Amino acid sequence: MQENTIIRERLARLRVAMARRGVDACLIPTADHHQSEYVADHFKAREYFCGFTGSNGTLVVLNDEAGLWTDGRYFIQAERELAGTGVTLYRMADEGVLTINEFLKEKMRDAETLAFDGRCITASFGQGLEEDLTPQGVRLDYGFDPAEAAWPERPALPCHPVYVIEDALAGKGVRGKLSEVRAKLSEEGAQCLLLTGLDAICWLFNIRGNDVECSPVALSYALIDGEETSLFIQNEELTDAVREHLSAAGVKVRDYREIGEALAALDLNGRAVLLDRKVTSYAVKKSLEDAAERTGGRVIEGTEPVTLLKAVKNGTELANIREVYLRDSAALTRFLYWVKTNIGKVPMDEVSVAKRLDGMRAELPGFIELSFPTISAYGANAAMMHYEATPEKYDELKPEGVYLVDSGGTYMGGTTDVTRTIALGPVSDEIRKHFTAVAVGMLRLANARFLKGCTGRNLDILARGPMWDMNIDYKCGTGHGIGYILNVHEGPHNIRWRALPGEKEAEILPGMIVSDEPGVYIEGSHGIRTENILEVTEGVKNGDGQFLGFAMLTWVPLDLDLIDPAYLDPASRTQLNEYHCLVREKLEPLIEEEEIREWLREATRAI
Amino acid sequence: MQENTIIRERLARLRVAMARRGVDACLIPTADHHQSEYVADHFKAREYFCGFTGSNGTLVVLNDEAGLWTDGRYFIQAERELAGTGVTLYRMADEGVLTINEFLKEKMRDAETLAFDGRCITASFGQGLEEDLTPQGVRLDYGFDPAEAAWPERPALPCHPVYVIEDALAGKGVRGKLSEVRAKLSEEGAQCLLLTGLDAICWLFNIRGNDVECSPVALSYALIDGEETSLFIQNEELTDAVREHLSAAGVKVRDYREIGEALAALDLNGRAVLLDRKVTSYAVKKSLEDAAERTGGRVIEGTEPVTLLKAVKNGTELANIREVYLRDSAALTRFLYWVKTNIGKVPMDEVSVAKRLDGMRAELPGFIELSFPTISAYGANAAMMHYEATPEKYDELKPEGVYLVDSGGTYMGGTTDVTRTIALGPVSDEIRKHFTAVAVGMLRLANARFLKGCTGRNLDILARGPMWDMNIDYKCGTGHGIGYILNVHEGPHNIRWRALPGEKEAEILPGMIVSDEPGVYIEGSHGIRTENILEVTEGVKNGDGQFLGFAMLTWVPLDLDLIDPAYLDPASRTQLNEYHCLVREKLEPLIEEEEIREWLREATRAI
Repeated sequence: MQENTIIRERLARLRVAMARRGVDACLIPTADHHQSEYVADHFKAREYFCGFTGSNGTLVVLNDEAGLWTDGRYFIQAERELAGTGVTLYRMADEGVLTINEFLKEKMRDAETLAFDGRCITASFGQGLEEDLTPQGVRLDYGFDPAEAAWPERPALPCHPVYVIEDALAGKGVRGKLSEVRAKLSEEGAQCLLLTGLDAICWLFNIRGNDVECSPVALSYALIDGEETSLFIQNEELTDAVREHLSAAGVKVRDYREIGEALAALDLNGRAVLLDRKVTSYAVKKSLEDAAERTGGRVIEGTEPVTLLKAVKNGTELANIREVYLRDSAALTRFLYWVKTNIGKVPMDEVSVAKRLDGMRAELPGFIELSFPTISAYGANAAMMHYEATPEKYDELKPEGVYLVDSGGTYMGGTTDVTRTIALGPVSDEIRKHFTAVAVGMLRLANARFLKGCTGRNLDILARGPMWDMNIDYKCGTGHGIGYILNVHEGPHNIRWRALPGEKEAEILPGMIVSDEPGVYIEGSHGIRTENILEVTEGVKNGDGQFLGFAMLTWVPLDLDLIDPAYLDPASRTQLNEYHCLVREKLEPLIEEEEIREWLREATRAI
Repeated sequence: MQENTIIRERLARLRVAMARRGVDACLIPTADHHQSEYVADHFKAREYFCGFTGSNGTLVVLNDEAGLWTDGRYFIQAERELAGTGVTLYRMADEGVLTINEFLKEKMRDAETLAFDGRCITASFGQGLEEDLTPQGVRLDYGFDPAEAAWPERPALPCHPVYVIEDALAGKGVRGKLSEVRAKLSEEGAQCLLLTGLDAICWLFNIRGNDVECSPVALSYALIDGEETSLFIQNEELTDAVREHLSAAGVKVRDYREIGEALAALDLNGRAVLLDRKVTSYAVKKSLEDAAERTGGRVIEGTEPVTLLKAVKNGTELANIREVYLRDSAALTRFLYWVKTNIGKVPMDEVSVAKRLDGMRAELPGFIELSFPTISAYGANAAMMHYEATPEKYDELKPEGVYLVDSGGTYMGGTTDVTRTIALGPVSDEIRKHFTAVAVGMLRLANARFLKGCTGRNLDILARGPMWDMNIDYKCGTGHGIGYILNVHEGPHNIRWRALPGEKEAEILPGMIVSDEPGVYIEGSHGIRTENILEVTEGVKNGDGQFLGFAMLTWVPLDLDLIDPAYLDPASRTQLNEYHCLVREKLEPLIEEEEIREWLREATRAI
């Protein structure tokens, strides 16, 4: 194995900075100051110091060793990217693998110092560190920014224009949203809230920005303080139109960089501020606690209310989302048609075809940006759940085996996410068996009927069961929420078989949007995923309760070349045929070319 | 509606006692001092004061009103039994129905007193009352025993001989079990434990008793105090053999009535005592806290370790259980044969046929007692989940409709539980549809494969889904654990779609026993339940984790007269046929009579 000297030098520089500050261990999460899932380059210190490019991972650097913790989606990719860096991969949730806290407990001694940037970890995570490490005499230094200290070429803070989402598109005005938030706050006994989630803030103020790749959000904080509402946002990002929009809603605008000062001056004066330790940073928590002590207020622990309000879509949002998904589905279907009919005739590679698909989306009305970098993975590459082909490293597509494409766009009208796996030529029986099981799982979940009160944990086995029946698991959740002209991943709900650590599982509620994406990932061989997006709908209400179900939002054929009827039970076969019948009915009006229509009819034939 | 004067007089007497003590509200749970599910007559104060005979319910008596809280299994029965008593039924978990605490919060005022017997509620429940009521100035008086105060004819404390379960039958000796408990205690950082659960104590000391109906347990407490172990049990219950058995295991025996004194004298001397607020009484918690304060010890909150140790059966237990279930299944099958072939020819009623079945069990080797009172319910009666026919009130069985029998025995070798619903003649299409859905649910759960780490909440939808698909729910869990020559219901695991309030859901582990009993209950029409008992087994272990599955313990035909193939998907049909094939294979050697064997072959034919 060759040494990765670039990473080794960066780590050496970091260790010098650590020594200078008297720090024995440094923890670097993948996070900005807002717990965003995707972070701007300015905040990519974890990637900088270890070379792992996945979207989730925490680096711990000691004087003589370093470890990276990441989840099952990234095991294969991280193994490759960490090679030669001297950084050890810790496979999270695998049997016998130490957690970060267990590792630190084992390594750190009395009077040693663990340093991190308290703005980049949640209050909850910070409290866990306190509980696990301070009893053994470890000191926490939460004011250390490793990027500031040892990343000379660090990119600047992103700064892009903000725009307004008009009420007709948002379905609800800012004043209305603010009263709902205040009502929820008051239910929790609080009058004050510091919002830090960028998607929550953009939703609340009906604005969007462009500070984070694939997330139409702006760096910001919002402070709801009694009757007063302040938005902290970079002055340079605001146009007059945005200023007017905010002012009309009674929102006071302050510069993003004033948040520290504002928190230091926060006067609670007997009032209570709500703290959600799952979303608020450790540093902000400390500031709020200081404010409470300093000015005679209280910190109440609770659930930040915007995330749930945002997750339950209103009628306008739902109508727009349905429309956007239909057009997005038609674009993807055209793309799949092109790939399937031209493979072997036209040269294709993972990067070139992704570019083609991205281009097709960009031409759709209201296109803003991709909702995440398109995952375009051929053959064994698709076994890496979040594989990203790059111009430097990609594979050719050949007329054999399977190709997986997971993609989506954000449009003025909704954010999409969809995955299809297609045959490019002959495939093994095993692949067809796996594809069929994945299709069965996707359809079973999509056709579920269940009582209100269920969380995703009640439903996960419907999608995952066909894989478990083959002694196969996919090491990720089955489904995630999706924002409205916002982040492609949002909570509070999800569909998983195990709760995330410390998660307060959220009920599945009518109006929520959730993905349904079971898969099979066989390292070194193939990866299969089929992802439809579902809208939660109300069913019958009777003496037994309120029944709920799902409606499909995605209308893209599942590749029948990959279905092995031997593994398709009759109920799933009916569901597949019914789905394809609707796909045909819905897409035909959007497709003019007779040859594509003909292909579509064949691709959606009843089997 | 006629007034129930007996109950009204009892409540009046209780209110006089309350007034004398200055009590404004009195809470009477269904509980002994050990949180047993079935309680001895001595402890049936709740039933005495309101007339409701179900196994779960809490009565709250105010000066001018009274309410009974019970769960979905009992709504129909409670409605009937409370008629004319003036006691209002509160349907727990129904939408908009106040919880007990919400009710008390609404009704009670500053400086008023809520009284209860602190020995009869859990520490957890008591703490909930403290948190909800003391802020509004309500005083809690936990030393009030309403039975002592207003139940002149209260039965005496039960007192029956105890016997020993030899090591060969227990599979593990007392000393071995005690070291496992001490190891678990030490993992929690504790050295001291007061065990109050009667089944936990009997399992730990390899003894059984007869103080509670349908539970082979003895009233007792156990104190593990460093290296010393004491069993508090009524002296009159002990034979020399039991004393020798306990003494050989190093267990000190003290009288049951000395527990108060022992707790008052408990010297922790710097040590920590483990408190599990879910199983320990509020009164004991107060005593332990006193002891900790008085003698410089600590109370550590944690999970009482015996329940889990007991739930994971050892090899000897499993081998005996399999054998016992086989014989028990053969007896029930003979019974079903007799009912189905004699209905319309021989007079039958719910009580007489139950007596016949109970008698057949009593003749089996090693029979100790019924594991619960046989539920023998014809027609609409079966819609009441825990219906009990009595010599005073029962129905005739007629050659039409369906009959449900839920029954079991405790034998030297295991405790059984099984439900079958059979056609006695012509039935409606709806009944066959419902029966088929129940069978499909039971079989899907029994045939599940899943990863270690799942709790019952991950699996419940497999059994319940076919009912939800018809917009029908059954208002109870799908499955419960079962003891070994012990209680028919045991934790810590279960199969439910929602966790019980405050429940720490337990993983399903290999060696556990769990019931699989979906149902359909249509008030006023019919009730259907099919219950098999499952053993959790280990499947493949690979890079994705340890897969688990179930093996059947119950071998009794499902009535094919009630299966409507239109609702039977092919996978379920295969599972049903495979199950019936095994039933036939396993039961044939146990049945000598050719006419029954012939009937069995027909009843288990492939469809």
